[in-house]
Amino acid sequence: MAKVGIVMGSDSDLKVMSKAADMLEELGIEYELTIISAHREPDELIEWTRGAENRDVKVIIAGAGMAAALPGMCAALFALPVIGVPLSGKNLDGMDAVFSIMQMPPGVPVATVAIDGAKNAAILAAKILAAGDDAILEKIKNYTADMKAQVVAKDAKLKQVGYKQYLAEK
Amino acid sequence: MAKVGIVMGSDSDLKVMSKAADMLEELGIEYELTIISAHREPDELIEWTRGAENRDVKVIIAGAGMAAALPGMCAALFALPVIGVPLSGKNLDGMDAVFSIMQMPPGVPVATVAIDGAKNAAILAAKILAAGDDAILEKIKNYTADMKAQVVAKDAKLKQVGYKQYLAEK
Amino acid sequence: MAKVGIVMGSDSDLKVMSKAADMLEELGIEYELTIISAHREPDELIEWTRGAENRDVKVIIAGAGMAAALPGMCAALFALPVIGVPLSGKNLDGMDAVFSIMQMPPGVPVATVAIDGAKNAAILAAKILAAGDDAILEKIKNYTADMKAQVVAKDAKLKQVGYKQYLAEK
Amino acid sequence: MAKVGIVMGSDSDLKVMSKAADMLEELGIEYELTIISAHREPDELIEWTRGAENRDVKVIIAGAGMAAALPGMCAALFALPVIGVPLSGKNLDGMDAVFSIMQMPPGVPVATVAIDGAKNAAILAAKILAAGDDAILEKIKNYTADMKAQVVAKDAKLKQVGYKQYLAEK
Amino acid sequence: MAKVGIVMGSDSDLKVMSKAADMLEELGIEYELTIISAHREPDELIEWTRGAENRDVKVIIAGAGMAAALPGMCAALFALPVIGVPLSGKNLDGMDAVFSIMQMPPGVPVATVAIDGAKNAAILAAKILAAGDDAILEKIKNYTADMKAQVVAKDAKLKQVGYKQYLAEK
Amino acid sequence: MAKVGIVMGSDSDLKVMSKAADMLEELGIEYELTIISAHREPDELIEWTRGAENRDVKVIIAGAGMAAALPGMCAALFALPVIGVPLSGKNLDGMDAVFSIMQMPPGVPVATVAIDGAKNAAILAAKILAAGDDAILEKIKNYTADMKAQVVAKDAKLKQVGYKQYLAEK
Amino acid sequence: MAKVGIVMGSDSDLKVMSKAADMLEELGIEYELTIISAHREPDELIEWTRGAENRDVKVIIAGAGMAAALPGMCAALFALPVIGVPLSGKNLDGMDAVFSIMQMPPGVPVATVAIDGAKNAAILAAKILAAGDDAILEKIKNYTADMKAQVVAKDAKLKQVGYKQYLAEK
Amino acid sequence: MAKVGIVMGSDSDLKVMSKAADMLEELGIEYELTIISAHREPDELIEWTRGAENRDVKVIIAGAGMAAALPGMCAALFALPVIGVPLSGKNLDGMDAVFSIMQMPPGVPVATVAIDGAKNAAILAAKILAAGDDAILEKIKNYTADMKAQVVAKDAKLKQVGYKQYLAEK
Repeated sequence: MAKVGIVMGSDSDLKVMSKAADMLEELGIEYELTIISAHREPDELIEWTRGAENRDVKVIIAGAGMAAALPGMCAALFALPVIGVPLSGKNLDGMDAVFSIMQMPPGVPVATVAIDGAKNAAILAAKILAAGDDAILEKIKNYTADMKAQVVAKDAKLKQVGYKQYLAEK
Repeated sequence: MAKVGIVMGSDSDLKVMSKAADMLEELGIEYELTIISAHREPDELIEWTRGAENRDVKVIIAGAGMAAALPGMCAALFALPVIGVPLSGKNLDGMDAVFSIMQMPPGVPVATVAIDGAKNAAILAAKILAAGDDAILEKIKNYTADMKAQVVAKDAKLKQVGYKQYLAEK
Repeated sequence: MAKVGIVMGSDSDLKVMSKAADMLEELGIEYELTIISAHREPDELIEWTRGAENRDVKVIIAGAGMAAALPGMCAALFALPVIGVPLSGKNLDGMDAVFSIMQMPPGVPVATVAIDGAKNAAILAAKILAAGDDAILEKIKNYTADMKAQVVAKDAKLKQVGYKQYLAEK
Repeated sequence: MAKVGIVMGSDSDLKVMSKAADMLEELGIEYELTIISAHREPDELIEWTRGAENRDVKVIIAGAGMAAALPGMCAALFALPVIGVPLSGKNLDGMDAVFSIMQMPPGVPVATVAIDGAKNAAILAAKILAAGDDAILEKIKNYTADMKAQVVAKDAKLKQVGYKQYLAEK
Repeated sequence: MAKVGIVMGSDSDLKVMSKAADMLEELGIEYELTIISAHREPDELIEWTRGAENRDVKVIIAGAGMAAALPGMCAALFALPVIGVPLSGKNLDGMDAVFSIMQMPPGVPVATVAIDGAKNAAILAAKILAAGDDAILEKIKNYTADMKAQVVAKDAKLKQVGYKQYLAEK
Repeated sequence: MAKVGIVMGSDSDLKVMSKAADMLEELGIEYELTIISAHREPDELIEWTRGAENRDVKVIIAGAGMAAALPGMCAALFALPVIGVPLSGKNLDGMDAVFSIMQMPPGVPVATVAIDGAKNAAILAAKILAAGDDAILEKIKNYTADMKAQVVAKDAKLKQVGYKQYLAEK
Repeated sequence: MAKVGIVMGSDSDLKVMSKAADMLEELGIEYELTIISAHREPDELIEWTRGAENRDVKVIIAGAGMAAALPGMCAALFALPVIGVPLSGKNLDGMDAVFSIMQMPPGVPVATVAIDGAKNAAILAAKILAAGDDAILEKIKNYTADMKAQVVAKDAKLKQVGYKQYLAEK
Repeated sequence: MAKVGIVMGSDSDLKVMSKAADMLEELGIEYELTIISAHREPDELIEWTRGAENRDVKVIIAGAGMAAALPGMCAALFALPVIGVPLSGKNLDGMDAVFSIMQMPPGVPVATVAIDGAKNAAILAAKILAAGDDAILEKIKNYTADMKAQVVAKDAKLKQVGYKQYLAEK
C-alpha cells in the first residue's frame, strides 16, 4: 500500500511534525516517521531517501527549521513529490526555513506549505495520493465537507448567542 | 489521460507561466492553459476549477502575483493537488505573492514553489502524476540524469579551459 | 437603514474583529456579524456577498489572517466599498495578511487598515456612510472631539502629577 | 456635486497619481488635483483639508512616498474618508510609505491601497460615492463587467492562437 | 536657559519616553514633557511646536509608534533639531515607526535614534546643546567616562570570578 | 568658526555624500570633506575624530554603506553630535546600513537620516549649529520658506496647465 | 599553545556567549573571555585586538547585538580570522546585528554564524585551529560522530515508543 | 601544500565566484575550482567533499544562491572550515541564500560572508591558513597595508582637487 514518509531534522521538530502523523491517521493513510538530520547524518539521509521508493513511499513530508536543507536534499534524491514544512524557531518566525525550502533551483521542486503547516502537509500528501486512489479522494472530500460544517456551526452559534456571549464562552 | 491544468490571473503572467507548459511538453504530459482572474471572474473560476476533475485534470498549477488569491481559491474548490507559483512584479520581489499563496489556513494546502518557479511547478506536477504512472516516473528520472550530465559537462569544460576562458566565452 | 457587514474567516478572529462591532454600536450604526471562510465555504461567501447589497449593506469589513483571501474576494463580488483588516497570528506579525489584502490588482481595491485595526475599520466604515448621512458625520466629529479631549486630559494630568507619579498610577 | 480631492506631496508623484485622475474622468466623477507637502506646507495642508468639506469633497485620495505623513494628516483633519496611496521610490519598494500610511493609530483610519495603486484609489473613491449615488454604482458595475470581458477575450485569444503565438504578438 | 522639549503621541509611550527625561535630569538639563497626538490634536501640535522656540526649547525629542507622524510634523514646524524615537508596539518590532520617522523627504530631516532609544535621544539632545555649552560638553565627557568605567569594572569582575559564577550572580 | 566634518568610508560614497557639501555651501557653512575607512584605517579614524573638536568641528556627518561602522565609531570618539547617512548599495536597498547606523547601544547615539539622505544630513547639521547661531537659524528659515515657495509654484502651474500638459513638459 | 579570544560588547551578552566557552572547554581548547565595548572603549578594543597575536590568539570570536561594530573592528585590527556572532535582543530578532556583522566591505571579512550561534562559533574556531592541528581535527571528528549518534539514538527511541509516548516523555 | 577548494552550484555563479580565485592568485595560494550542484549531484558532492582532506584542501569556499544547500552540506561532510558566499539572484537580493547558509544548526557551522562577497571569502580563507603559516600571514598584512594606502591616496587626491573635480574625473 502507498505510504507517506515523514522525516524531520531533530526531535525538537516532533511537536509540530506529529500533527502530520495525526492527520494521516485520521485519513487512514500509512506513514513512516523518522528523525534524520541532513547536516549530521548525510549518509543516513541518502540511504533512507533513495530506499523510500522501494518501501512504497509515494510522497515525502520533510520538516526543518533554520537553514533547512532536509526538504531540498530529499527532493534531490527522490523522484516522487517532496513536501517541505518550514518550522519557526526562536528567531525570524520561520522565514529562514521558508527561503531555504521554497527557493529551490530549477529541476528540483519542493512543495512548500505554510510555516509550521504540518497538518496541511499531510492533507497535501493525501491529495497527491488521491490523484490515483479514489478512496482517498472520497476521504478528502468528506474531510472538506466536515471542515465546512464546523464553520457553519460556529457561525450559527455566533448568530444565536451574540458575539459577547460567544467570546465569554471561549 | 491525466492532465495538468495551468491557470493564471492575467496575460501579463504568461511569459513566466508558459515555462510550465514548455516543461510539460518536454515531459510529454497533457495540459490545459487558461487565463482566469480570481478577482475579476469569480464565477468562471468556480466553474473551471469544479469542472477540472471531470476533465481528467489531476493537478492544477496556478500562478499569480501581488495579493495572489488564485492558487488558494483553486485549492478550496479542487480536491486534488494545487501548485502555486508566486510571481514577482514591479515591487516587493514577489514576497506579496509568496505570503498570499504559501500561508494557507489548515485544511486547504497549496504546494508553493519558488518565486517565478513555473518550470519547477511543472516538474512537481509530473512528480505527482508519477506517483501513479511509471512512464512519467521514468521520464523524471531521465530528466534528472540529463540535468546532472549538463552540470558535469560544464564542470569538465571549466577544468579544461580555466575560468577566465570560460567566462570570456559565456 | 444602511448597514455594515462584518465578516471574518474563523471564530479565532472574533476577539479582534468584535472591536469593530463595539465601535459601530458606539456610533449607533447597524451591522451584521458573520463567520465565513473564503477557503472552506466559497459558495456561502459568494451568496452572502452578492446578497449584501439587497440587505442594505453599504460597506463590508472583512478580517482575515495569513493568506487572507476573504477581503479581496468580497471586493470581487460587491460593488460597494470593502475594508480589509489584516490580522496578526502566530508568526510574521500579520505581514502575510497585509500583503494578501493590500496588494490587490487594478480594478478591485480593498481599503486596508492597520494590522489588527478592527476599530479603525469601523470608523472608516462610518466615515464612508457619513459621505451620505449628516447624522453619522456629526457623530464622527463628536467622536474625534472626544478622542482629542481624552489626550488633552491625560496631558493635563501628566503635567499636574509628573511622569513618575503618572507611571506609578498606571 | 460630490467631488474627490486628489492631493500629493510633490510633483514627482504626479506620474503615478495622475492615474487616479484618469480613472475618475473615465467614471465621470469630478475631482480636484493638488500638490501640497505635509512637511513643507503644514498650514496650506490644514487649510485645504479643513476646507474640503465645504468644497463638496466627499473623499480625499492622498498619495505620498517615504515617510508619508500626508494621508494620515488628511485623515486627522477631514471627517470623511481618506484613501492613502503608498508610492514606491528609489529604495525600499514603497514599504516605508506602506507603514507610514497603513499603520494609523485607533480613531484615525486611512484606507490604504496597493503600492502605486492610484487607479485603485480612484475606484475605491467611486465605490464610496456609490454608497449614496446609484448612477455611480451602475458605472462601477459596468466597469467591472468590462474588465471581466477583457480577461475573457484574452483567454479566448490565447486558446485560439496558442501561447507561443500569443507571446510573440505581445 | 536652553531646554529640551519631549513630546509623545500617547500616554502609552510614556514608559519608554520617560527614560529621556531621566537622562536629562541626570545631565542637569531642563526639559518640558508633553503628550500631543499629531493625528488627534493637529492644532495643539502646531501651537506647541511653533511656540517652542520662544519657550527656549533648542531641541525637540519626539517619540511615536506605528505610522509615527509626530517627529516629522515637528520637524516641519520647528527650525531647530528634532530627534525622533521610533517606538516598538504590538507588531512589527517598531519597523513601521522607523520608516515613518527616518525616511523624511529632502529639506525636513529628523535625527532618528534606535528603536525605543529614548535614553540615546536625550544624550543626543545633550550633545546638540553641548555644541554651544561647554558645561554640558563636560558632563557628556564625564558620562562617557563613567560608562566606560562600568564596562571595565564588569570585565574585571568577570575575569576574577569566572563566567559561571558571574552568570550565577546575575 | 564652527565647522561640519563630513567623512565617508570610500570614494564610491562621494557621489551621494557630496550633496551634503553642496547644501552646506548653499547655507554658507564651513566644512571638511574626508575619506576614512573605519575598517581599513582605524588609527586614522581615531586621530581624525579625536582631533575634530580642536579643529572647531561641531558636528560630524558620517556616511557609509553595508556594515556601516563609521558613524558609530565617530560617535564613540566625539563628544558632539554625529549624523549618520545610510547609503544604499548593490543589494538590500541600504537596510544593512540603516541597522548598522541607527541601532546604537545606550550612551552612544547616532542621528540617523534617510537612506542616501546626505542633503538632509547637512540641513540637520545646520539646525544643530543654529541652536547657538542666529544667523544660521535665519538661513534655515529662509531655506524652508524657499522650499515651500517652490511647491506652491509647482501647484500653481499644475492648476494652470492641467496634469496632462504638466507631465508632458517634465 | 594556540588560543581563542572570545570578546563581547556587554555583560548582557554573556549568557549566550558563554556557550562558546563551554564548547571550547569540551574540545579542550584554551580561550580568553573578555568584555570590551567597541563604542564605549575604542582604545581598549584596539589594544586588546592588536595584542592578541602576541598572546597566541589564533582566532577571535566576537559577539554583539544591535549595531554590532565589534566583530568588524576586530577584523580591521587582527590579521587572523574573526568569527562574528549576531545576538538577538528585544527587537528585530537579531537582524540588525546580522547586517552589521555580515555585510563587511571587501578586504575585511568576518565569518558570520547563525543568530545567537555562539556554540557554532566555537566549533568553527576549532575547525580553523584544526587546519594546523591534527589533535583538534580528531576531536572535531569525534564530536561530529557523537552528534550523529545522538540523533540516531533519538530516532531509535522514537521508533520504539511511538511519537505520542515520545512527546509525553519530553 | 595547503589548498583552498572553491565550489559553486552552477556556472551562472562563476562570474562572482571567480573573484575568490582572483584573490587567492594575488595572495599566491593554491586552489581548486569546481562546479557541483548539491541538488543535482549529491553523490559527486559527497565524493568531492569527503576527498578534499586527502587532496590537502584545508578550507572550502562554497558559493550558492536561492535555497543554498551547498555550503551547509559541505560543512556536514568536511571537518575543516567551510566559508559560505550567499549569491544574489533575480529576486530577494540574496536574502534567501543568506538564511540558507548562515542559519546552520548547532554543530555544523558555516562561516558566512557578505552577499556576493567572494573576494572576502578568499581573504578569510587566507586568514585561516595564516593561523598556521607565517608567510601567508605576512601577505595578509601587506595586503591590508596596501588597501589602507589606496584609501589614503584617494583622500589625498580628494583634498587636492576638490570633490567636484574628483567626481568629474571618475
